This record gives sequence, structure tokens and C-alpha cells, in this order.
Amino acid sequence: MSAVDRATPLDRLRARIERLGAPLCVGIDPHPDALPAGLSGVDGIERFARGLVEATAETAAALKINVAFFEAFGSAGLAALERVRADVPRDTFLVLDAKRGDIGSTAERQAEALLGHLAADAVTLSPYLGEDAIEPFLAFEDRVVYVLARTSNPSAGVVQDLVTEGVPLYRRVAQWVVERWPDPRVGLVVGATAPDELRALRAHVPDPGFLVPGVGAQGGDLMAAVESCAGRRAPGLVNLSRAIAGASRGADWQVAAGLAAERVRDEMRAGGATLDGRARPPSPAAHRL
Amino acid sequence: MSAVDRATPLDRLRARIERLGAPLCVGIDPHPDALPAGLSGVDGIERFARGLVEATAETAAALKINVAFFEAFGSAGLAALERVRADVPRDTFLVLDAKRGDIGSTAERQAEALLGHLAADAVTLSPYLGEDAIEPFLAFEDRVVYVLARTSNPSAGVVQDLVTEGVPLYRRVAQWVVERWPDPRVGLVVGATAPDELRALRAHVPDPGFLVPGVGAQGGDLMAAVESCAGRRAPGLVNLSRAIAGASRGADWQVAAGLAAERVRDEMRAGGATLDGRARPPSPAAHRL
Repeated sequence: MSAVDRATPLDRLRARIERLGAPLCVGIDPHPDALPAGLSGVDGIERFARGLVEATAETAAALKINVAFFEAFGSAGLAALERVRADVPRDTFLVLDAKRGDIGSTAERQAEALLGHLAADAVTLSPYLGEDAIEPFLAFEDRVVYVLARTSNPSAGVVQDLVTEGVPLYRRVAQWVVERWPDPRVGLVVGATAPDELRALRAHVPDPGFLVPGVGAQGGDLMAAVESCAGRRAPGLVNLSRAIAGASRGADWQVAAGLAAERVRDEMRAGGATLDGRARPPSPAAHRL
Repeated sequence: MSAVDRATPLDRLRARIERLGAPLCVGIDPHPDALPAGLSGVDGIERFARGLVEATAETAAALKINVAFFEAFGSAGLAALERVRADVPRDTFLVLDAKRGDIGSTAERQAEALLGHLAADAVTLSPYLGEDAIEPFLAFEDRVVYVLARTSNPSAGVVQDLVTEGVPLYRRVAQWVVERWPDPRVGLVVGATAPDELRALRAHVPDPGFLVPGVGAQGGDLMAAVESCAGRRAPGLVNLSRAIAGASRGADWQVAAGLAAERVRDEMRAGGATLDGRARPPSPAAHRL
């Protein structure tokens, strides 16, 4: 057994971020309307996703695959996802973004689907049903979960900003998660589209790793994300999807995606990725991709 | 085109509940550890689910299929689900229970998976991301969504009972849903395991249809559920899964499930199912299955 085979997913992620110098997570969310010219349907989704894995897996610390884009094609889409998953190199940390959450007996089957059958290193989960929806995923040894705290979408605040006991719900959720599971395997999803909330939440809960979506096409702040993603107990990740996958829709799409990933990695390095878990002070001018 | 083909899913559901005299929803959640003797694996899941559809579809107003139990087997599980779905008779209202919710562009693909590809009449959705996660499902003409308010699991209250502006979160969510979508197509999931909260919530939001899980194996109150499920604007449904599907694990499992469904339907009728949307006064003694 090699060192890579013995390491836990979090150990691998830590080592990889250190080696690459950037907490870059490349998001693979293949929308049929955004495929490169010449690709279409479920075959196009598969070719695009496998091309993105090939082009970016060495540059990225992690890949985040959004399962809904495959589920939209039913069993044929899932079969495509199984082949995409098989392409992901062993030492690349794989997040399956599915935002699951259900009563215990169902959550157990959701965990089997994502962590068992598809063998992801990590998943995204909704907090709405409480710990019943989360524990079955933690029963898979060494795997990582990211619980939604503050998401990156325009209507995120409708429920997440409701004030409960003087603080917004997303902060209460974050507080509950870190108290309930003082465990590096339990992180939070915190969107980069609200950089002030992101920095404030990092100050409030210094320990967990954050998975930070919303940078790039969604308008989030790259450097705020890089500075805030890592926790004291676990590394963090900053996800970019369309800014990398959609770099070109021409014949050069795969090369363009690879170059875009390298460019983002370099920008993260220059801005000071939080490799050691200690966030640097905020940069005076926040960059936007 | 027959009358059934022209009717919307909600029209069909209304007519069917009236004809059957009970708002019975049969839940199909085939756990591999709870299969009848002789069945196992994904083939066992499929045979069990198709047998339950055959045995109960005429007695039930609706069927609720939990997609996680199929997803656990990957593409083979999804292919089984596609065949189960094809067995559901045209005039039986089909709920796919998946508790989805994501940013808009992803929610659109989740809707395509469940309402497009699998052609469900209704789905369950999480409120945590706000309307972005819900609107793409309503873009499918005439389909119905049930947004999680108060779930039936033991840890439901951890997040859902947090007090915001003087009321528990689940009630704020319910209020937001009915104000945002004064539309009979938008209902709520409200568990029967907290019958007082269920009745209070019905009094608070009289209009929407409730999908009420948690009766039976989870210990919820059948008559509270039947009395409270229907709204002024839309019919409601009371779901039973294990109490019907698990009636026997012997060779007679299919017959036993059919008889159990008829028994529950008759009990609902006797207790006064709320066929016309007006709840009857609570019965003096709450029955438990």
C-alpha cells in the first residue's frame, strides 16, 4: 500500500493544497446549454466532464461534481457520472455536490449512493433536518461533509438570514455544527457572494474548513474566499465552476479550461492562499475574476 | 384525449381522494434490510417496489417513492426506478420524495430529473436556499411541490424549532411559502410525529395542502394527520410507508401490503377524511397504527 492509499481524504487534501500552493476546487456542473460547440445530450455532458477532469485534475486540489447535471438524464446520466468518477485520480479530493438531507433511514441510503457506490471523499449536506440527516454520512470512515451554512445564490438570505436569538440563522447553524461535531471532517458551505458575512463567520467559527462556492460567474470575491476558507482544524476549498469550465466554447475548450485553472491557481498563490490554516489579513483591494 | 389526460395532477388528486374517501399516500422506501424473504440487491428492490405499486395503486390516492433507495445502487438503481415509475397508473398521483434544493441553475436540472425525465406529479423540496431552489420546479406546468416545514424525524426540531421573531422557524417557513406562492400547487411537508404542531400549523396557514409523513413506524398520529392534511385551496395527503410495505416479510408480502392499504384507507374513512378541505374537529381519542 502506498502512502497515498493509507492517507485519509483530509490528509490527502492537506498535502495536495500545500504542494499546489492553492486551495483550488474546480467545479464540474455541465449544463446542456453551456456545452462546447459540437457536444450535446448525455454523451456531450460526459465528454465535457471527462475532458474537464483530464484538463484540471493535476492543477486542482479538489474537484466538485454536481450530480444534478447527470441525474437530469436518469440512469444514462448516472452511468455517465460513474465513468467520470472513475477518471478522477486517486489523490484528487472529490466532492460530490448533492445537498442531501433526509430522515435517518433515508440519509443512510443517500450516503451509500454518494460515499459508497460513487466513493466520494466528501459531500454537501443541508442542515434543515438536524443531525439525523448528517450522522449516516459520518458513519463512513474518514469521509468529509460540508453542511450548508450561507449559500451563494441570490435568495440565500430569505431563510438563512432570519434572525434567531440575535444572530442570523446561518450563523446559528454554523455554531450548532461546530459544537455538535468538533471534528475536522465536518465543514461548512459558505458562499463567496457575501464576503463580509464570509469573513465574519470565519472569525466566529475559526475551526472548520469552509467549502466556498460562488466565485467567478456568480460574482463572489476570490481573495476573501482564499483568505477565509481554511480553518484551524481543517483545510478549506474555493470552488470555481463556470470561470474555468466555460473558458472557451470553441474547439480549444479543454486546453482553455486547463489554462484557466492554472491562472486561478497562480492568482490564489499570489494573493496568499491560507495553506497553514492561518488566514492572512484581508488584502486592501478585493479581486474579482 | 380522455378526461383523465386533460385534468391537471391536482384535479386528478382531488377527484381520486373524493372517490376513495381517504387521502392515503402509500410510501415506497425499499430498504435492502427490510425486503421480503427471498429478495435482495437492486433486483429485489425493483421487484418489491413494483409489487407494492401493483398491490396498492388502486387503493391509494397517491404513491410516494423515495428516490434515495434507488440511487444507492447507482445507474442500475435509477434504471430500476424508471421501470417502477412506468408501472404507476396514469391517474395515480406520484410524489417523488427527494428533498432537493440548490441554486437556480442546479435546481433547474433537479427539476428536469424528477419532473421531466421521471415525470412525477409532485416533489418534496427543502426551503433552505429560498425561492431560487423552488421556482424551477414550478416552471413545469401544473406540477406540485411540497416544501419541508416540520419534518417527522427525531432531530427535526434542532433547526426547525429555532425561534425567529417570536415563532419557530418551521412556522416562518410555512408563512413565507404561502405568502410567496398563494398557489394550490405549493404545499408543505408537515410530520405527524408532532400532532400539536401539525394542528397549530394548519390553523395558522389554512390554505395549502400538507403532505404528512411519519404515521405508522415513526409513531405519528393518524387521525391528527387525516384531519389536518387538506387545505382550503388544495387537498392533502397522509403518507404511510413501513406500516403498509412491511405488513409481511413472508411469501404473502404483496397481498399483505394490499390488505394493509385497504385497512388504513377504511380507518381514514371511518375517522372522517377531510375530503372537502374542511377539517373536522379533533377526535377524542387519537388512533395510532
